[in-house]
Amino acid sequence: MHKKLFIPGPVEVRKDVLEKMATPMIGHRSADASFLQRRISDNLRKIFYTQSEILLSTSSGSGLMEGAIRCCTAKKAAVFSVGAFGKRWYEMALNNNVKADLFEVPMGEAVTPEMVDKALSTGEYDLVAVTHNETSTGVMNPIKEIGKVVSKYDDIIFIVDAVSSAVGTKIEVDEWGIDILITSTQKAIGLPPGMSICTFSNKAKERAEKVPNRGFYLDLLALYKYIQKKDYQYPSTPSLSHMFALDYQLDYILNKEGIENRYARHIELAKMVRAWAKKHFELFADEKHLSNTVTAIKNTRAIEVGALNKELAARGFAISNGYGTLKDKTFRIAHMADCTIEDMKDLLKNINEILKLED
Amino acid sequence: MHKKLFIPGPVEVRKDVLEKMATPMIGHRSADASFLQRRISDNLRKIFYTQSEILLSTSSGSGLMEGAIRCCTAKKAAVFSVGAFGKRWYEMALNNNVKADLFEVPMGEAVTPEMVDKALSTGEYDLVAVTHNETSTGVMNPIKEIGKVVSKYDDIIFIVDAVSSAVGTKIEVDEWGIDILITSTQKAIGLPPGMSICTFSNKAKERAEKVPNRGFYLDLLALYKYIQKKDYQYPSTPSLSHMFALDYQLDYILNKEGIENRYARHIELAKMVRAWAKKHFELFADEKHLSNTVTAIKNTRAIEVGALNKELAARGFAISNGYGTLKDKTFRIAHMADCTIEDMKDLLKNINEILKLED
Repeated sequence: MHKKLFIPGPVEVRKDVLEKMATPMIGHRSADASFLQRRISDNLRKIFYTQSEILLSTSSGSGLMEGAIRCCTAKKAAVFSVGAFGKRWYEMALNNNVKADLFEVPMGEAVTPEMVDKALSTGEYDLVAVTHNETSTGVMNPIKEIGKVVSKYDDIIFIVDAVSSAVGTKIEVDEWGIDILITSTQKAIGLPPGMSICTFSNKAKERAEKVPNRGFYLDLLALYKYIQKKDYQYPSTPSLSHMFALDYQLDYILNKEGIENRYARHIELAKMVRAWAKKHFELFADEKHLSNTVTAIKNTRAIEVGALNKELAARGFAISNGYGTLKDKTFRIAHMADCTIEDMKDLLKNINEILKLED
Repeated sequence: MHKKLFIPGPVEVRKDVLEKMATPMIGHRSADASFLQRRISDNLRKIFYTQSEILLSTSSGSGLMEGAIRCCTAKKAAVFSVGAFGKRWYEMALNNNVKADLFEVPMGEAVTPEMVDKALSTGEYDLVAVTHNETSTGVMNPIKEIGKVVSKYDDIIFIVDAVSSAVGTKIEVDEWGIDILITSTQKAIGLPPGMSICTFSNKAKERAEKVPNRGFYLDLLALYKYIQKKDYQYPSTPSLSHMFALDYQLDYILNKEGIENRYARHIELAKMVRAWAKKHFELFADEKHLSNTVTAIKNTRAIEVGALNKELAARGFAISNGYGTLKDKTFRIAHMADCTIEDMKDLLKNINEILKLED
């Protein structure tokens, strides 16, 4: 029995999108491939409000996160972490001999623009890496305000992990001064996992030109140069199945649902889940910085999360336990991609029934 | 109009396999994901005649090629190149500050065991990298014989790019002394592009433990450790669509077609194309080292390859022009994956008609 996914990725994918994954193959060196990949980039530029180039990588979001910090740190990276994925970014830097410092906040809190200002004022750093949306804690960092601080300093590359937020919440890449915004297909975009996406500013390109030892497969500058030269074809064979589905879904988002409607639906879903959580439990994250795509709920009733998920599974639903050390202390409900208001009502009604909570 | 692909990847994919790419999502941290990914690894071990662990990477074959040479070279790599993809491997080493020397043979010729012996006798190298099947020239290197030479020396890691040969031609990984055999989904396995696969021997694992600075996403040792600890789940969200299709196709190969029948069909197809090529043109590669999966044909009639492909496209077929500097001087017909004898007869009949050649 299929379980409808309310976990923070992979998300539930619409049937018509899944069917596009079964499109017959084309040559990746064909004019058809160029046309397809150019249209995807053009549409992503609209969604991200950017003039930057778009790079597509057949890898998970971690692939482009590693590529970004490795290719664009010449001096030292300041990595601001609010949970598991921020720490992972720091680890990626160290594993590539990239100098980096880790700035952490307690789980559930957000990075403040002041923290970033203080770090940058030392003059030690030439790259700032921040997680936009931390699925382990349900925190959404104030990227716009952080971007303002970063822009006060010269020659800082600002890279943002928006894997679990982009296309579910508005991010104005150019306006907010983001050089590399990274996301991947299995979150708010609403596709299966297997491809990651980033914006790549001219400033990032110029920085990468000064960084030696950028590797091969995840070298963002090499990707950039190749697609310029070869009309949006990639150096290695990309996942064409994801290209077909992504192209279809971007048309749906821009021309059927409408991007503003998509953001509004995400906010409505988030409010519904937060209200439910506050009625029956508590929110884990700082209320000033709640995520629009996933809510982490403090397990104040000491329910058995595993048992709840087992009963939900029998009814055709899946939610997530807490991440890492937050397991059983929290649980998580994702509300992103093409999840409808009715889907969410249905889930919450079923949880209420299982836990004998009032509607 | 869909063009049936006779290019050396992406290959034509069977409809029933494509449909598996549209399987609804599951959680990548679920017992279902563990079960699926463990079964894939078990079946791949059978196909590769190995006791080694299998690693799956959401990347093209280039991703694992880079990971292998970076993670397993402690001293210096000897890269034996017979064309474009051998050179790419050398470039990958340099881009990661991995010491390497490039040994080249003229285009169309194979690497000899003697060349490898001579290089290793210097004592300079601790890793040998060889392309098994070079799609740019249609050469298949004598990996078994090269493996024998490598095994004479202590502590050499033997890594093989079998991207365009594995599962289309028999490779006995353990018997031939291969530490890391790399392939990807869009070639003889018969899936869409988007996932790569390698075997990973204990010896390779022990070597990687001594190599610092292995990166993150393409760190083979990290993948190995994670799947051991987490029951075949991967550190980053993998392309589940490819997992579903790969699982289905491995069952087809092992239990429906039969692996030996698959190899026999590839040989029959190769013989058919070679006979046709010799009747009307000439073979490009050394006849002692012809590929079982792709044939490069010397354009002795000075046909316009682009024009031929255009006419073929109108009839629903696609073949490949020569690669890089071999463009127009050669053209290539791939005969791999689930291409049938009838498919190939049909293609050659259509080429004969277009070029006014006798059948």
